[in-house]
Formats: sequence, structure tokens, C-alpha cells
Amino acid sequence: MTPVFNFSAGPAVLPREVLLEVQKELLDWHGSGMSVMEMSHRGREFMQIAAEAEEDLRAVMGIPANYRVLFLQGGATSQFAMVPMNLLRGKTSIDFIETGHWSKLAMKEARKYGQVRVAASGEAQGYNAVPAESDWQLDPQAAYVHYTSNETLSGVEFPFVPHTGDVPLVCDMSSNFLSRPVDVSQFGLIYGGAQKNIGPAGLTIVIVREDLLGQALPGTPTMFDYKVLAEADSMYNTPPTFAMYVAGLVFKWMQRQGGLKAIEQRNIEKAALLYETIDTSAGFYHCPVEKPFRSRMNVPFRLADERLDEDFIKQAAARNLLQIKGHRVTGGMRASIYNAMPLEGVKALTSFMQDFARNHG
Amino acid sequence: MTPVFNFSAGPAVLPREVLLEVQKELLDWHGSGMSVMEMSHRGREFMQIAAEAEEDLRAVMGIPANYRVLFLQGGATSQFAMVPMNLLRGKTSIDFIETGHWSKLAMKEARKYGQVRVAASGEAQGYNAVPAESDWQLDPQAAYVHYTSNETLSGVEFPFVPHTGDVPLVCDMSSNFLSRPVDVSQFGLIYGGAQKNIGPAGLTIVIVREDLLGQALPGTPTMFDYKVLAEADSMYNTPPTFAMYVAGLVFKWMQRQGGLKAIEQRNIEKAALLYETIDTSAGFYHCPVEKPFRSRMNVPFRLADERLDEDFIKQAAARNLLQIKGHRVTGGMRASIYNAMPLEGVKALTSFMQDFARNHG
Repeated sequence: MTPVFNFSAGPAVLPREVLLEVQKELLDWHGSGMSVMEMSHRGREFMQIAAEAEEDLRAVMGIPANYRVLFLQGGATSQFAMVPMNLLRGKTSIDFIETGHWSKLAMKEARKYGQVRVAASGEAQGYNAVPAESDWQLDPQAAYVHYTSNETLSGVEFPFVPHTGDVPLVCDMSSNFLSRPVDVSQFGLIYGGAQKNIGPAGLTIVIVREDLLGQALPGTPTMFDYKVLAEADSMYNTPPTFAMYVAGLVFKWMQRQGGLKAIEQRNIEKAALLYETIDTSAGFYHCPVEKPFRSRMNVPFRLADERLDEDFIKQAAARNLLQIKGHRVTGGMRASIYNAMPLEGVKALTSFMQDFARNHG
Repeated sequence: MTPVFNFSAGPAVLPREVLLEVQKELLDWHGSGMSVMEMSHRGREFMQIAAEAEEDLRAVMGIPANYRVLFLQGGATSQFAMVPMNLLRGKTSIDFIETGHWSKLAMKEARKYGQVRVAASGEAQGYNAVPAESDWQLDPQAAYVHYTSNETLSGVEFPFVPHTGDVPLVCDMSSNFLSRPVDVSQFGLIYGGAQKNIGPAGLTIVIVREDLLGQALPGTPTMFDYKVLAEADSMYNTPPTFAMYVAGLVFKWMQRQGGLKAIEQRNIEKAALLYETIDTSAGFYHCPVEKPFRSRMNVPFRLADERLDEDFIKQAAARNLLQIKGHRVTGGMRASIYNAMPLEGVKALTSFMQDFARNHG
């Protein structure tokens, strides 16, 4: 069978060798006679799986000891409420960097709990760029500054980590989590859904500096209180055990890949190839995002002639290039090329794009 | 290899034929070339999986058309907050039937949002029985009546469905969900974590009568608003796709087993065998729960001589009878015998218990 390349924005492609490992031990994890899905979360076997997953994530990212790693549920969308409920800490206002669909959703939810200030917005640039940091109007009294390091829908990615002084920096890193090295110590809190670079949907990872815990708003559900969850080592109730196990295997895979620095290099190479194909298509394809802010993870592009869209998607599928249709909000195409997408997948796509342009140009 | 029987209280044993199916199609679901874990939740393939899972659950339980089925995250513990946040509907007070650990936790969380009335308590009977319905002090003005149909820790199960007149009945059915037929139309809302009788941890199922939706408290996180989740068909954000898929396979397995009526018969048979072994052990084993309220799912028992506990657990493990140690809160033993535990597993356990009693009696 011709290999299938899956460009879904998430849930998304997983490393094949991880899936093979999961398949192999699906009914009997390490001679235990049990599937990981059947193990008590408080049993010896799963406690080991959970501990290793955290250890490996800490090693991959270089997470300092004064940060807690939480394995939660509910997706980034739950974090849109959970972050303000926990991090307002007696302050009234939150600074947001507005760069597109997901940062706007985070802002909308935060308005339930505090005052939302737009410290900078990409609106004037049609949300095709990150506003220049020198123009940001940060409030030194803000509870925190929130930004979305990669806008999955529009493919706008921060090429830098913002500087916010003493105000904690909070990042929705869902769609470029673990795609490049980051200095965790620059952040107050990082969160992300697992279903892009980490593992199955249904797992959300939060990395939070310890001193920010313990001041949740009254009325915060217990399951939304970071401190409770941290003190219970993410096992205040039953965690999403199987998703944690798969994530743990992905962290080990990342280490075998050479870690974040090596993974970043491959991501740069893959993205460069795809953007080059778009930019050298003499206008047949077009990416609206300004070059310095083009995402390495989600590559949105349009055909000059939209009437060809349907045919493009159909012919791509015939070549086993799947899920390249853009988000229903934006239209056009979007190829998501997360860590687990091999270079061969991007080559197959660009080669198809060139053929298609030639046949319809 | 001798078969392993896993008596974990949850996550718990899954049907072997379901696990084999999952294993077989782990890398390639129905020729799609993708693992279910890799599929966009909005793609054709997963939309079909999700629709079938709901259809099959509706068929198995006979869920009326005016009830919505939600596939959520966060476990029953999240529901402890979510239910009052959505179902107070301008009322101030909630009636609880207090029967043990889990109902108490639900009450504790509900106190954040409204007044908690204890309409009946098992305290006087040492939480070893459900208080007689004729003694309940129900408040006709209550927003709803909440009960825990099966207390997983202490093994106390309701042998009846309460009658609450016009006041909606809410049930935490986590640990006996789908173990017997229930008339859904008697309930306002049913909720349960999946990790007992349904599938992997990380999936929570809520069945709610439509007229109860749409009156969430101000400040309710969007992800805690049933109406938002119902209107988005449980896809307001990315749902726990893989867990939903496994649950869907379990629902199909249940249909092949003959449905809830047939499953209930097997559960009655398994529980009877285990309780009989305890009761005819001449006091070597003891179950404190009063007979009419003994759980068919979680069977707690103690050895008269607690000094033998450790040896009992060790010898059981040597016979591949796993995870029978009681909850750390209660001590003693607990054998959970959910739907997927075959009769052979219970026979292996009772045969071991008889041997152990003979050797140490």
C-alpha cells in the first residue's frame, strides 16, 4: 500500500514507531497481562508509566524544578477559563496579545473572570503577522500576559518569546508545543492540548510555576484548581491514563530523534520546502501570512482559482495526501506538518502541488 | 500463559474481543490508512465513529429522544461541579442521598454553588445500607435530587430507582452504568466516568433531559455548560476521540452479549457466587454490607484475621488474580467484577479464596 500522509491540524499524525509499540503491547503491557487501558491509575504499573512520562517531558523541555507538570483533561478550551480562575490572584486585569481565532476565543472566555486588555493586536495587519513587540502597550499591573504562540487556523507563529518583565507570561502552546526548544523559565504558565505534537486528544498538559498556585477564585470547580491537581500529582481523580501512556512513548521517541534541537531543524526544513513551493508557483498558490511569522506547523495556502479547490482536494486524496482542506472558518487549504510528519510526506505534497499547478496553470 | 483476571475498581478490565479489535485496526482504521488517534474529529471517518457510538448507546439503554447524550472529559468529579452549575436553574437548594464516600464528595463540591440538604443518610447504618425510601425527607422545592447508584468504595448499590415526583432525579452512575437496564425517562440527568463498564479513562458520559439545559450559572466555564456542549454535539472543542471509539466498540460488544437484560443476568450470577463464597466461609471472610444493598459491581470483603491480608494479596497475584486490594480509605479487599469480568474470573477468585481459607482456617 502507498503510504498515507495525514495533514490534519489535530488530532494529527503520530510517529509510526510509537503506534507500532502501542499495538504490540495493547493487550499485555510489559508482561503484566493487562492493557494499559485496564490498569488502576494507582497501581504500581501505571504509576511507573506516569512518572516516566513526566520525567521524560521534563528532560525533553528542560523544565526547571520550580515548575509543576500537570496532565489534565478538557483541552486548551478548558484552560481558557482555568487560567484566569487561577491566575488573577487578586488582580483585576489581564493583558492579551490578539493574533487570531484562538487568542480571541481565549479572550472571550477570560472576560467572564476579569478585565481583558488588548495589549497588542494583529488586526491592522489582517491577522497575518504578530504585532511588533516594540509597539505593545503592556500594563505592569496586569495579572499576566497571555499569547498564542501559534495560531493553528491562520498559521501565524511567534518567532520570539515575549518579554513581560515581572508580569507572568502565559502561553497557549497547543499547536507548536515541543516543536522547538523553549526556555520554560521565561514563562509563568504554558498549556496545550496533546492532539498535535504529543498524543491522543483528551490529554492537556499544563506547566506552571509553583508560586502562582493556590489563589483560585471562589467558586472554582475543584477540577479547575491547579493547586489541588498539583498536590495530587494530577491524580485527584482518574487521569486519562491511556493518553498519558501514548504521550510518554512520544516523549521517548522525541529523545531518540535527538531532542528538540534536532526536531526543530527538521521542522524548519519541512516548512521551508512547503513555503518555497507556494512562493515559487508564480501565483498559482498563495500564503497570506507575512514571512517572518509563517508557522512551521500549520501552513495555510490558497489556490488563485478557488474553483479548483475541490479538484485539488480530491486529487490529493487520490495520492493518499489526506486532510488538507482548510478550516471551515478560513476556507482554502491547510497542511499541518507536525513533528511526526516525515519529510517524505512534505515532499509527496509539494510534488503533487507542482504537478497540479502544471496541469492547471 | 495462565489468563490474568484483573479486579481493579477502575480503570478496569475491558472485553478481550474489543481489545483485539482495537489492536488489529490500531494503525489503519477500516482501510483509511490512519489510526483513530490520528483522525480529525471533524473528518468523515471520525464523525461516523462518533455517530455510531451515540446511536449504539441509545439503542443499548433505550434513551428517549428528548435526552441528549454528551461525550465529555474530566470524570465524575468534574460533574460534581458541573451538575449544580447547570441544574440549579434559579433554585437555591439541592437534595442529596448520602450513602458513602462518593456521594459525600459530590455534596462537598455542590456546596460551592448552592445549599445542600441531606434528604437521607446511610450514616446510622454505618453506610452499609441505602436508607429506606419511605424515610426520605424530600424537599419539593429542591433544584434536583442527587444520588450515587453504586458506591464504588464501600460496595453499596441501590436496588431501586428513587421516586422524586416533579423534582429532577440526578444520578452518579459511574460504577454501575450499563450493568443493568434502567428506565432513563425516570431521570433528569445521568452521569458516569467511562473507566468501569464503558472504556478508557478520560471519557465521561452525560445523559440529560433537554428541558434542563440552558440555565447555567454566571461564571460557568464554557466547557462546563451542557447547553453549549449539546448544541455542538460534544464537539465544542476536540473530544477524547480514541476513548469514544473504544466506548463505541464496547457498546457493540454489549449488543452482541444480548443487551442489558442478558448482561444483568450474568452480573447477578457472578455476584451471587462471590457473596456466597464469603458468606459460607464460616467467618473467615466477611462483607459488612447489608444483603439487599450489596453491589453487583464492587464486592468489598475483609479477612477476619487482618494479619493475613498481605499474604492473601500476594498469593492471589501468584494465581494471576490482580488488583484485589481494597481502597486505601477502607482497607481490606475489594473485587470489582464489572461487565467485562468473565464468570471464569470470579470462579478462579472464589476457588482461590476457598483454598486460602482452608490453608489458614
